[in-house]
Amino acid sequence: MTKFGEHWTSSFREMVVEAGAHAIRDAGIEGKDLEAIYGGCMASGRFIGQEHIGALLADQMGFNPLPSTRCEAACASGGVAFREGFISVASGMYDVVAVGGVEKMTDISTEDAALALGGAGDQEWELFNGATFPAIYALMARRHMIDYGTTEEQLAACAVKNHANALNNEFAQYHRKITIEDVMNSGYIAEPLKLLDCSPITDGAATVILCATEKAGEFSEKPVEIISSAQASDTLSLADRESLTSLKATRICADQVFKRAGITASQVDVAEVHDCFTIGEVMAIEDLGFFKKGEGGKASEDGETALNSKVSINTSGGLKACGHPVGATGVKQVVEACWQLRGEAKGRQVDEAEYALTHNVGGSGATAVVHLFKRGDRK
Amino acid sequence: MTKFGEHWTSSFREMVVEAGAHAIRDAGIEGKDLEAIYGGCMASGRFIGQEHIGALLADQMGFNPLPSTRCEAACASGGVAFREGFISVASGMYDVVAVGGVEKMTDISTEDAALALGGAGDQEWELFNGATFPAIYALMARRHMIDYGTTEEQLAACAVKNHANALNNEFAQYHRKITIEDVMNSGYIAEPLKLLDCSPITDGAATVILCATEKAGEFSEKPVEIISSAQASDTLSLADRESLTSLKATRICADQVFKRAGITASQVDVAEVHDCFTIGEVMAIEDLGFFKKGEGGKASEDGETALNSKVSINTSGGLKACGHPVGATGVKQVVEACWQLRGEAKGRQVDEAEYALTHNVGGSGATAVVHLFKRGDRK
Repeated sequence: MTKFGEHWTSSFREMVVEAGAHAIRDAGIEGKDLEAIYGGCMASGRFIGQEHIGALLADQMGFNPLPSTRCEAACASGGVAFREGFISVASGMYDVVAVGGVEKMTDISTEDAALALGGAGDQEWELFNGATFPAIYALMARRHMIDYGTTEEQLAACAVKNHANALNNEFAQYHRKITIEDVMNSGYIAEPLKLLDCSPITDGAATVILCATEKAGEFSEKPVEIISSAQASDTLSLADRESLTSLKATRICADQVFKRAGITASQVDVAEVHDCFTIGEVMAIEDLGFFKKGEGGKASEDGETALNSKVSINTSGGLKACGHPVGATGVKQVVEACWQLRGEAKGRQVDEAEYALTHNVGGSGATAVVHLFKRGDRK
Repeated sequence: MTKFGEHWTSSFREMVVEAGAHAIRDAGIEGKDLEAIYGGCMASGRFIGQEHIGALLADQMGFNPLPSTRCEAACASGGVAFREGFISVASGMYDVVAVGGVEKMTDISTEDAALALGGAGDQEWELFNGATFPAIYALMARRHMIDYGTTEEQLAACAVKNHANALNNEFAQYHRKITIEDVMNSGYIAEPLKLLDCSPITDGAATVILCATEKAGEFSEKPVEIISSAQASDTLSLADRESLTSLKATRICADQVFKRAGITASQVDVAEVHDCFTIGEVMAIEDLGFFKKGEGGKASEDGETALNSKVSINTSGGLKACGHPVGATGVKQVVEACWQLRGEAKGRQVDEAEYALTHNVGGSGATAVVHLFKRGDRK
């Protein structure tokens, strides 16, 4: 992956090449081994005036004429592209594919970016009426506080922990330790969410290489196995949901991935979850089954999601501190899972990590995509 | 599919539901049979301010929580979504999936639409410097005329034939017979391409239902078999190509689909090809192997692509006369192929159609996707 951040001197195209070249070298493959490309990107049309991102990836990487397909599911674009790559290998259509995620968000004004991101929710029923994403997640946060007694300090604990993790991730956007007090003193964006509860606008790209299980040994001494994949949809509009405090699409994915893999949430050592706002992390760790509904805030405050605690959540720094280039995030989560399962997450390594989970959300929960990974057999 | 055209009184969402409901009823399935959705859409962010189209499709159709994924490959978005649906069934992940394509293009100004469509090519090297799509295809046309003696009248013959076919397609945008003289007298858009050489801006949606071959008999008395699928990429920018008169991505797809299916181009009875401009049809019928390179113009003029001639090209009316809602076109091509192979293409039926081909192009040829279909065994 590229460093995540504000890239004033490198373009969308340069980021694609940087992440792609890293992945190919790291995977020990050569270009000729690749058979197809999938790319996650949310809103390049509005961010950089360019659609046709699949073809752009192949073109920039010099991989024509390989088939190359862009997948879009708002902020879950990367996760969904990864799942399509997985399905394509599972189909027997291809043996080796690259999955990239990319977004260049800082080339337009913050106002225009907010409008582009609003297209992840229900444009007609939410954005058109003024509900931007911080406002939508603020509604969830407020309801969670009312129903479960979750506090602003508990939400802040997620941000503090994610910034602490990011200190040891050279690819993270922020290398800045923050305290509960810092978060509490930051300005309200949409009450009760403050500036330091929110993930930033970010440029970045990430790439992973997938291959058929029986081929993995040819390329890697430390392969990582995808043991389960699930994707689910829910209403675009928050107002149409059964609950404001739980993402049904996440719950459905969690049920499916654990059932298919034959393991339970308690066996997961490390998870990258979708903390676009701190309340997102609280809901995620509940909906994924790491903590009971309503106890995510307290668990965060009690340090149960910190590095090498009960379950290590967002060791990369998460969306909050590693950054959130929307189309790239889902792929970055997989990159972090791989580094953790290979024992290569210097400074933020989870001890003896065997199982990792990635959880990527589109919009306010209209798409969720969850993958489970297992450390492969070492040579 | 919906009727293609300028839909001033129905929205993106209404078109999705109309095409989706038609497809489900026509396929003889019930909602509960469906396991996943794929959607092709090129530039909804710029056309209607809405991304996250996969989730929107599931939401509007009442199919939550099914996984639903948008694929984008510019004007080949529909064809690429269809291919992903095909791969997902081939993988064994799902048995029954819906593939939709949709675009609502008329809600913004023509200037803004031209800029959005320019995102299908190379934004940095083409659109930014003023090269819109008619200009890019005009370069191809001019070179084809120089190299092969193709005439403006031969190009016009494609438009005349496609308008003739559309007269018998109730879903086509235009029901207007035109003559060679009409085309020749229409104004230049980008020399040598005139207004009537160009496909229009269109609203529309189309949906098909795919299922595992062994299940097809449960639902349909007249199933259609997908016998081959190929997708290939080329440079985004025309200037980087080996040729201005041939789309390499199309040629690669043609080679692959015929080889995999074990048939030759001469066995194809009916083909929907990507005639975004008339020169596009001429290049397509050459690159797909129906005619020798350089002879597509003359073949068109001689009536060899008319209904029930050597090969029936664009019986739907093609992009030119049926219309070109960019993300929907690739799926509409499959709808037409199915109707032809089922003998249901009233008024424009190809006699004894056994093999059909669909050819969908993104940008000026940076993506091509080709499918071959065979009439299934009848009960």
